[in-house]
Amino acid sequence: MKTVNEADITPAVLERLADCDDPRFKQIMTSLITHLHAFVRDVRLTEEEWMAAIQFLTRTGQTCTDKRQEFILLSDTLGVSILVITINHPADDGSAESTVMGPFYWENSPEMPLGADLSVGVKGEPTFYSGRVLDANTGAPLANAQLDIWSGDGEGTYDMQMPGDVGMKARGRIRTDAQGRYWFRSIRPTYYPVPTDGPVGDMLKKMGRHPNRPGHIHMIVSAEGHRPVTTHLFVANSPFLDSDAVFGVKDSLIARFDKHPPGKAPDGSQVDQPFYTCEYDFRLRPAV
Amino acid sequence: MKTVNEADITPAVLERLADCDDPRFKQIMTSLITHLHAFVRDVRLTEEEWMAAIQFLTRTGQTCTDKRQEFILLSDTLGVSILVITINHPADDGSAESTVMGPFYWENSPEMPLGADLSVGVKGEPTFYSGRVLDANTGAPLANAQLDIWSGDGEGTYDMQMPGDVGMKARGRIRTDAQGRYWFRSIRPTYYPVPTDGPVGDMLKKMGRHPNRPGHIHMIVSAEGHRPVTTHLFVANSPFLDSDAVFGVKDSLIARFDKHPPGKAPDGSQVDQPFYTCEYDFRLRPAV
Repeated sequence: MKTVNEADITPAVLERLADCDDPRFKQIMTSLITHLHAFVRDVRLTEEEWMAAIQFLTRTGQTCTDKRQEFILLSDTLGVSILVITINHPADDGSAESTVMGPFYWENSPEMPLGADLSVGVKGEPTFYSGRVLDANTGAPLANAQLDIWSGDGEGTYDMQMPGDVGMKARGRIRTDAQGRYWFRSIRPTYYPVPTDGPVGDMLKKMGRHPNRPGHIHMIVSAEGHRPVTTHLFVANSPFLDSDAVFGVKDSLIARFDKHPPGKAPDGSQVDQPFYTCEYDFRLRPAV
Repeated sequence: MKTVNEADITPAVLERLADCDDPRFKQIMTSLITHLHAFVRDVRLTEEEWMAAIQFLTRTGQTCTDKRQEFILLSDTLGVSILVITINHPADDGSAESTVMGPFYWENSPEMPLGADLSVGVKGEPTFYSGRVLDANTGAPLANAQLDIWSGDGEGTYDMQMPGDVGMKARGRIRTDAQGRYWFRSIRPTYYPVPTDGPVGDMLKKMGRHPNRPGHIHMIVSAEGHRPVTTHLFVANSPFLDSDAVFGVKDSLIARFDKHPPGKAPDGSQVDQPFYTCEYDFRLRPAV
């Protein structure tokens, strides 16, 4: 079909899916093409704006490295990531809510014993985390559940962003004991800006938005026979809790961090500076 | 605002445009976010599909080089480019219709005298092009109008795609004479596939589509006091005229290529093989 008028174009493109033999892919592409064209018609996109979009997308792809994922950051800052997560993990049953994974996950972080200090010397206020992993239906403790944990340092800088090749810092995997309990030491996370030196930073600026995320620590919590959850604990009272640049905050994920004077920590060690404790239980849904 | 339910997310993201001081950018981002979220909700995008999309976009950006623009190819094959062009250049007044620029344009090709042979030795059947550039309102000939011309060789391969660094081939800029006439020699273009060794090629395959474009020669025609037009001449009877992979065909841009036996060519030269002639007049609208 030859396209002549604006109105002919979308049907002509959709017609080319006639021989697509993957029904799900066909459904996705049909919806994508329809919405993308509707957007272009809606705003009457100019050729200069189209070229700016091409250049933006190209630069976004070329900003990605093995340690930086600018397209995930774009998806996060446009609220697409949290939308996908919320569609796939509706929180309606008291299980731990999901939130964005973010661009700083690193697979296969070290397995550590219960009580380990994940911070391995990074800057930050010592914090002792503890809690349980439970079955969301029965409340039964889940032994041998895994917490795959990562955060920035106490100034909001992730190991991947530190100068030089410092390896993994403030990351680790631990497993619950027979009573479903976990505990470990790390730092108290602080708010920080998402990377702003790339195209997404330029976009945020042009949108009139700040790039900050409230303080949080990431976890993927998983247990046999249960649905894993990718989530954060947010530091109660952190700045930007009401305007997270990536829309990740959910009320149920805000955790209290209690401050203590120097002295004996929950793990029995002596700490010579003020420290924090944070307790949180994760409830996992049984796998379908 | 903290997001809890699927329905809360789009308003929460749009709210972040409150401090945007560029009204046009605000309008574009509002529409983009609204349509993008509607697409995700419409198809109930899974996390695996989201990750496949992130990887596809990243690969598309990383396939771009100084000689290859995979995002333009993506826009072209999804019909977005032709939609933008058609919105910005409605053909309702008898002026030459616009079509896609494609990914093979190269700025500052050589200025050549009228009658020059642009093909500079590339493979292909000799073709003598001629016609006029006219004012679309009055029909008056436009002297000193520029035609910025490019095409693949007679087998559909562009200089940018040829092995090694061959420089510019089958490209050049010529200007009309005092009577608004142009003529030059090149080859008869043939159909060819868009590049299929990248992510867009994979997408076309998964969509069940062929990657071919009907034979065409590109031109940007411009003249003082007139709106320039970026267009093609399509070879009448070329395969794929009815299913151009980038939706560029418009009836008014299909040109007859008449075949002649070896002998005296229109420019007076002797040609010892069959050759073609193609005549086409371009009408330009006065600049507003």
